[in-house]
Formats: sequence, C-alpha cells, structure tokens
Amino acid sequence: MANYAIGVDIGGTTVKLGLFSTEGKALCKWEIPTVKEDKGSRILPDVAESILKKLEEEKIALGDVAGVGIGVPGPVDAKGTIFNAVNLGWGEFNVPDALGKYLNIPVKAANDANVAAFGEMWQGGGRGHANLVAVTLGTGVGGGIIVDGRIVTGANGAGGEIGHIPIEDEETEVCGCGKKGCLEQYTSATGIVRLARRRLAKNQTPSTLREGELDAKAVFDAVKAGDALACQVAAEFGEYLGKGLAMIASVVNPEVFVIGGGVSKAGEVLFEYIRPAYEKYAFSACRNVEFALATLGNDAGIYGAAGLLLSGEA
Amino acid sequence: MANYAIGVDIGGTTVKLGLFSTEGKALCKWEIPTVKEDKGSRILPDVAESILKKLEEEKIALGDVAGVGIGVPGPVDAKGTIFNAVNLGWGEFNVPDALGKYLNIPVKAANDANVAAFGEMWQGGGRGHANLVAVTLGTGVGGGIIVDGRIVTGANGAGGEIGHIPIEDEETEVCGCGKKGCLEQYTSATGIVRLARRRLAKNQTPSTLREGELDAKAVFDAVKAGDALACQVAAEFGEYLGKGLAMIASVVNPEVFVIGGGVSKAGEVLFEYIRPAYEKYAFSACRNVEFALATLGNDAGIYGAAGLLLSGEA
Repeated sequence: MANYAIGVDIGGTTVKLGLFSTEGKALCKWEIPTVKEDKGSRILPDVAESILKKLEEEKIALGDVAGVGIGVPGPVDAKGTIFNAVNLGWGEFNVPDALGKYLNIPVKAANDANVAAFGEMWQGGGRGHANLVAVTLGTGVGGGIIVDGRIVTGANGAGGEIGHIPIEDEETEVCGCGKKGCLEQYTSATGIVRLARRRLAKNQTPSTLREGELDAKAVFDAVKAGDALACQVAAEFGEYLGKGLAMIASVVNPEVFVIGGGVSKAGEVLFEYIRPAYEKYAFSACRNVEFALATLGNDAGIYGAAGLLLSGEA
Repeated sequence: MANYAIGVDIGGTTVKLGLFSTEGKALCKWEIPTVKEDKGSRILPDVAESILKKLEEEKIALGDVAGVGIGVPGPVDAKGTIFNAVNLGWGEFNVPDALGKYLNIPVKAANDANVAAFGEMWQGGGRGHANLVAVTLGTGVGGGIIVDGRIVTGANGAGGEIGHIPIEDEETEVCGCGKKGCLEQYTSATGIVRLARRRLAKNQTPSTLREGELDAKAVFDAVKAGDALACQVAAEFGEYLGKGLAMIASVVNPEVFVIGGGVSKAGEVLFEYIRPAYEKYAFSACRNVEFALATLGNDAGIYGAAGLLLSGEA
C-alpha cells in the first residue's frame, strides 16, 4: 500500500501541486509557472520533473506514491482525454497517457471544476456527503456535480456547466457563451456588479455603492453595513441563484450545495439571500438541503485531484 | 450463472410482471391486480406468490433466477427503502427486505420512473447510451436520469423529478406540487391542453381544436394536419420543454433525451418543436445531443426492473 498521492491543478498562469497522505492530509504544497509556449507542450514534462524533484527532496520513493491526480481547464472525458484547453493551447489528447510518458505511476485526469468539487467533498465544505453540487462564483460561474461519490462528467465533459443554465428570458446583453440570460450573468462576481450598476442607474437612492470601486466584495460589505440598495442587489442575486439551484435540485437532488469562488468570501450572509429563493422554487422533496461554504479555497483542485486518484474513480 | 430475471412494476391499479432472459429478452409478461386494502400489505406477498406460480408453470427453478427487480411509485433510496407511496398506502420500509421474506432470491428496488429510464437504456430508445435523460410526458411530467449507466437517485429519492423545474415566472395557476410555473404545467398531456385552451380563448382563429374533445393527441393530430393554431400550441410546448431540457443538460450533459409517456405517441413531430428551442437555450458543449422516442411503452418498468437487478446496481 502506497502512503502518498500527488494532486495537480493546472491553471493558466501557475500549476499548483500538492503532496498528500492517503488519509487526505496536505503534507506540502508548491507551485510552478505554466509555460504556454509551443502549444503548452512543456507543461506536463515540467509537472513530472517538479514531482520527481519534490519526491527526492522529501526522500519518498516513487513506489510509495499511489499516483497523480490532475485537474485541467477544459472538458475531459471519463478516460482522461481532454478535448481542448484554450487557455493552455492544448488540443485533444489523453492526459494520463501523456503524463505517463514522463512519470511511471498511475495518473487520473478530470476537468478542474469537477476536481475542485471532488476536493470539497473529500476534505472541504462538503465532507461527509456523497451527493453534492459545488458552485463556484468567480469571474464566471462554474460547478461540479457529485452523485454517489462520483463526478458527473457528462457526454462531452460539460457536466456541471451550471453557469449557462438559461434563467432570464428578458436579458438583452450577451453572455460570454453567446446566449442571453445565463445564470452566470447575474451571480458571478461580474454579474453582481452588473446587477448593482443597473440598480444604481435606475434611481437616485443614496448608497455607499455610489462611492469607491464597485465589485462583489463592496456589494456584500455594504449589505453587512445595512445599505438598502446593496440589500436589493443581494436579493436579486439570491433570487437568480436560488432559482438556478432549485432547477439543479430537480435533476440530481443533492444533499448539499457547496458555494465557493471569490464571491463566497462574503460568507454566510449569502445564504440569507439564496435560501429563501431556493425554498420558494424547489420541489418539496428537494427542499431539505444544506448550504455550506467551500473551505479549501484555491487548494480545492489539488485536494480533489489527489482524492480522485485515491478514490479509484476516473 | 442464472438464466433468468424477473421485473416487477407496481402501479396503483395493476402490478406488471415480466420474466426475462439475462440477455434482456422478455419471455413472458403478465399482470395481477394491486390490492390496496390494509395499507397495501398484500401487494408484496401477492407479487411473490404470482412469481412462484409462474416459475412453476414455466418449470424454472428458483435457483435459475438471478433475482427480482422492482419499481415502486414513490421515492426510494439507494438501499431500496421507500419513504412513502401514497397511491399504495405504503409508509416507510425496505422493499428488498420485505419481499425477501416471501421469496428467497436477491431483490432490488428503485423508483418506478427511474426504473423505466433504466429500461429504456437497457432495451429501449436509449440503447447503447450510458448517459441518458428519460422524460415521461403523461398526465404529469416525470423523469429518470442515468449517469455512467447508473440511476441518479438523489438524496431524498427525488433525482429526476424534472416535472417540477421552475420554468415560468408569470404563471398564476398552481401546480399539483403547490408551486407555480413548473415544467409539468406546460408539457404534460394536461399542460398541453391548458396551453391550447388559453390560446383558443385569446382569439377567434379558426381551428379544428375548437371541435370535438381537446386532448394532447388532438393537438398533435391537428399539427400534422397543418392547423395553424395547433402549431402555435406545439411551438409553445416545444419552447418550454426545449428550455427545460437545456437546463438539465447544463447539469448532467446527457448523450440522449428519450421522450416517452402518452404525449410521445405523437411521434417524431415532437422533435421539430423541441429541438430548435433546445438548441437556442443549450450551452454550446451540450448542444450535440440526440432525441429519441421511448420504445418500450408501459413495459419500460418491467424491463428496467429486470435490467437493474442484472446490472448489479442498486
């Protein structure tokens, strides 16, 4: 029995790596730059080299490592084939096969958002639950669906792409995906700013949001300070997200929604706005759900990658 | 190795049973009445007795039967515990344990809609696909989600309860579930009639729908005959269902939607109305999906129950 596993999270700027005990403890974490030249062809060799160097430093034999889990920014099928990763310059290839050339231990690959969801289940805000929906409210809105302890990859690796659920028929602005009225347009950090700007433009209500930089943090700071207009923005955000989560619940009926990403730094106050809307829109049998904050932050990916490898799931 | 499996589908009026080869061929099908007296306590003994009698008639030894799969009309957890089945008078109990008292072979139980979805995957319209969403357009709208060949049961057995996805904010009438604007209110057989009635009341456009009995069949018969008002109703139905399926696709990204239930008897014409709306609302990575008609009709339950038992899945 191996005592260790490696988790890798490939981002557009840096690759995060973590050495884990098989019980799920992060023993050390480090980063290397993501070299995107030559269509990202150096990324996997760099990862392998960095892992071997770290194992040497830590005096750990390769045979004592169960394998490497790796999260990549693009759609990945159940066998670990990535179809493309625009941010890295990658086209279609099998990630475990490719990394396996440089590192002779088992490799499992999955989409980074799904891997992060798995991490939150394994050691984060969703610990103890096997049916979980992770929602990442960042610049965009991403997600990861876990059913019976397994990642829902989907036919084209698009399982959990919840940011593009159609939620508003009346939208006139176009989402990054080309459609109009996606969940992401109202509940991402950018979406919340958009809701705030619209509301500020609509009337002259005094609000601290009229001063200083307007971002999602400013909105929820103002909510906590009792700013009436900010509370209206939060209610609108909560209405959209609560309704979106109710739709998701009718499909997979999770035990818990784990909310992460930059917006989640606002904390439990989010749930005061999400939960009432969720309960209004959710089917009765799905109403009994927990809301939890993600706890692993930017480390969710390395945790999830290591956990995925150790779970025996692809 | 056993050569046979039994599939059972418990309905409010009759229990359907089927004897299957392990390859999935229905060797014989029969029915018994559902006796609902005494809180439905006779249903499972009746099922066991009927199975034993049939095996005797067919000269099949119990040892040559892999087991019994059973679909029940209520939420069922992964271990086969049903929480309630209002139509049968049942409260909470473990179905495999209860049936096992009368029949000493393996038993697996699941929700009837989920079991029917499994049947369509195993031997019906979804054959060859492991990621499938079955949509039943009947008096209500039900569904079953299959991910990687496994039923998505959900935390409270409410996985696939897609009839209650919130789809219309402006609805004033209440759905059977107590909410307003559920998918079921526009896309069930009853929902289609409601859409037609509203449209007929709104103007004086001549339409064959103004004569005779108005039901979902009449609407789609009129569509096939080129009735303009009926086509508007079909377009409205397609818009709601296509949008609902696009929401579902953002969650589980299926390979195929299998459309069944009474409304599906209208045939392929349905897809002419569902697909354009689906493509408008679906996230790009999910757009490449098949639409198929369910092919097992009322037998989907017995097929799915037998298939579930044989699959080794709970």
